[in-house]
Formats: sequence, structure tokens, C-alpha cells
Amino acid sequence: MNELKRQANQDSVKEEIKFYAWHQIATVGIGSISLGAIARSMNITTPALYRYFDNRDHLIIALTQDAYSSFYSTLIAARDSVAKDDLAGQFRALCMAYYFWAVDHPQLYQVIFGYSNSTYTLNEAVGKIADKCFLLVIEIMAQACEAGRISSAANLEISTDLANRLEHITHEGKAWPALVMYLALSSWSFINGITSLEISQKYSIMLAHQTRGFVQLEVERYMNSIGFS
Amino acid sequence: MNELKRQANQDSVKEEIKFYAWHQIATVGIGSISLGAIARSMNITTPALYRYFDNRDHLIIALTQDAYSSFYSTLIAARDSVAKDDLAGQFRALCMAYYFWAVDHPQLYQVIFGYSNSTYTLNEAVGKIADKCFLLVIEIMAQACEAGRISSAANLEISTDLANRLEHITHEGKAWPALVMYLALSSWSFINGITSLEISQKYSIMLAHQTRGFVQLEVERYMNSIGFS
Repeated sequence: MNELKRQANQDSVKEEIKFYAWHQIATVGIGSISLGAIARSMNITTPALYRYFDNRDHLIIALTQDAYSSFYSTLIAARDSVAKDDLAGQFRALCMAYYFWAVDHPQLYQVIFGYSNSTYTLNEAVGKIADKCFLLVIEIMAQACEAGRISSAANLEISTDLANRLEHITHEGKAWPALVMYLALSSWSFINGITSLEISQKYSIMLAHQTRGFVQLEVERYMNSIGFS
Repeated sequence: MNELKRQANQDSVKEEIKFYAWHQIATVGIGSISLGAIARSMNITTPALYRYFDNRDHLIIALTQDAYSSFYSTLIAARDSVAKDDLAGQFRALCMAYYFWAVDHPQLYQVIFGYSNSTYTLNEAVGKIADKCFLLVIEIMAQACEAGRISSAANLEISTDLANRLEHITHEGKAWPALVMYLALSSWSFINGITSLEISQKYSIMLAHQTRGFVQLEVERYMNSIGFS
């Protein structure tokens, strides 16, 4: 087997391992991922599986990376589906894409936003793509503030301590005004609130087929609250 | 051993089982709770443990009930710490209590709001106490609407379909106007958004000791957005 073929074969085994891991997450949750159980499903020995992933944490990092990649490409496609100068439209599209991506991919959502109790820390590659997702929100808010599209900005009383802290948050060495960072964090929490309640099935019973209408109304209320037009 | 003593003894064993279960949730997550592992920790056999909880689901239901009890008593204490006619103050207190309870009890929070993938359904007793928690929010919103404390209510355009659905949501046979139910769901999502991002440790790195200030600012922004005064 030549080197190229060997690599392709290794990659396909890795994909198969991840396939079974996602199945485990869907049925028993991420806390219960077991390399032994995956090996049994694949009819290989656990030591053979360790040739592809050094340990459980490495497998979880690979899954997290895949989840973020899917999340990021969905968000960027939503943003780019709207005209460049329509910042309010881009923000709406981003919120709805976030929500529907989570509903369509509850296991992937769980890997990113779940209350993980494991002790592994995300590696640099995962941190980078996570940053890129959040950066999409920061950039829209920065552009909207600059273009004067956030009319109630002046009414927000950000304390000096909080403002100092917000101005110290950096992405690849770049920082933003406190208001931009506050708006980015605030809108991120807002859409996460709806999404996480939906995923933990607190809404579906109450709202049934009207969930989409509720989410859209919430996005408008949120945008009104910051004067985003 | 007389009947009373036997019952007291049974209760204390049940508490011990739950103690180990919470420890498992803290270390490996709720998906991985194993009755076998709990039995080993307690130095008893797994069949002996089944005398106290018929199966894993029954244990999880008992844990969920305890989590809701703690959550409910925290919320009600917060609400009752504020004067009865100060509805805005009550709402603020409720939001902050929700947030701090979650931060102080991440395992309990996970049991209530986590993305559970297990197939057990909550029993009636759990449903009742969950309803009571949400009812606290509905009641504040109902009183605030009645007292004319939600000034921007008229600006919200709730579609007919969504309004119909909202008016059909009942708690123990009682329903509320669409606006009241919308505001209750909306404020529940809002505070859950901040809380769940905090619990999944998305904030702490960025905001450090300014998290409380951020949460308070968000509560004010939310209240402004619905004109709650």
C-alpha cells in the first residue's frame, strides 16, 4: 500500500470512529463516550483504536472541531446570503441560522455548548475556530456601531470596571470598544438562551409549530432593545 | 427494628445513594451515572441498591426533584425579599437568583436544563414543581401587565397564530393572555441564555470578576426592551 492510500485508509477509519462516537453522544450523551464501546461496535480491539486517537480527550477534541466547523460554515453562509450593507438583515440571518443549526444538530450543539464536566481543555485549533464564530458577531456589531445603526447605544450605562474589562478582551491581539464587545456578548447570550431551552425541550411542548414565530419575534424585540436598525 | 426506624434508615441510604450520584454528575456528567459504580462506592451489591431505586431512571427522577426543590425555594425566597408592590424589583431579584443559583449549583442546573439524551420522561411530581417555578415568572408578568408596568406591550406584534398558541398554554387548567405568556417565555429564555453560557464557561475567561456587572446590565436592558418599570 503506498503512502497516499495508507493515509486515505487511516482517514476513513478515523471517520468511522467519529461516526460511532456521534451515535453514542446521541444515545447516552458526551459524558459517556467510551472508546471500548466504539471498538466493540467496529469489531476491533481497543488498543487498535488507540492508533487513531491517543485517548478519549483527543477524540472529543476532534468531534468538537468538526462541530465548530459545521457551525461556522452555517453562520458565514447565512451572513453572506444578505447584502453587505444590510447589517440588520445580516444580524437577523445570523440569529436564525444559529437557532436552526442547533435544532438540526443537537449532538453537535451539545459538544460546543454542553455543560461539560470533563477535565480536557480545548486545544489551540479548536480555540481558533471558536474565536472565528464569535468574531462574526463582534464584526457585525462593530460595523453597526460605526455606521450609527445602534441608536440606543448612548442609553446603556456600562460601569467603568465592566468597560475596562470588555476593552481588554482580545482576539488575535485586536480589541474593540466596550460597547461593541458588550453588544456582541449580549446578542450571543440572547440567541443562546432561546436555543438552549429549545434543545433541552422546554419549548417544543408549549409552542409546537409556533416556535419559529416566537424566535423571530424575540429577534425583533432584541434588536429594538439596542436600537439596531 | 420498628417501622419508623426502618423508614428512617431507608431514607438515609437513599440520601447516601444520591450523594454518590451527584458526585458522579460532577465528575463524569449525568449521561454516565452508573448504579453499579454507586454500589461499588458504597460497598454494597448492585441488587441491594435496586431495593432503594427500581432503576437508573427512578434515581434520575429523584435527583431532578431535589434540583427543582432547591431551585424553587431559591426563586421564591428572592421574590419574597422584595416588597409586594415592587414588581420590577421582584423581577430583578428573580433573574439574579436564577443566575447565582446556577453558578452555585452547576450539577443541579445540569439536571434541570442539560441536554438530556436519555429516554426517561419526567414523572408527574417533577412536572408539578417545574410548573411551579415557571409560574413564578408568569405571575409577575401577569401582575405587571395588569398594573400597566409593561409600557412597550403595545409595540409588540404577536402574530395571530403565535397568539393563539400562547393562549392555549395552561398550568393546572389556567391560561393567560398571549402577551403575558410571551413575556414569561421571553424573560425565561433571556436569563437562561446568560446562565447557560456562564455554566459552559464561555464567559468566565472573558469577563472574570465583571460577570455580575454584565448580568445586571443585561437585566436592565431586557427590562427596558419590554418597558418594565
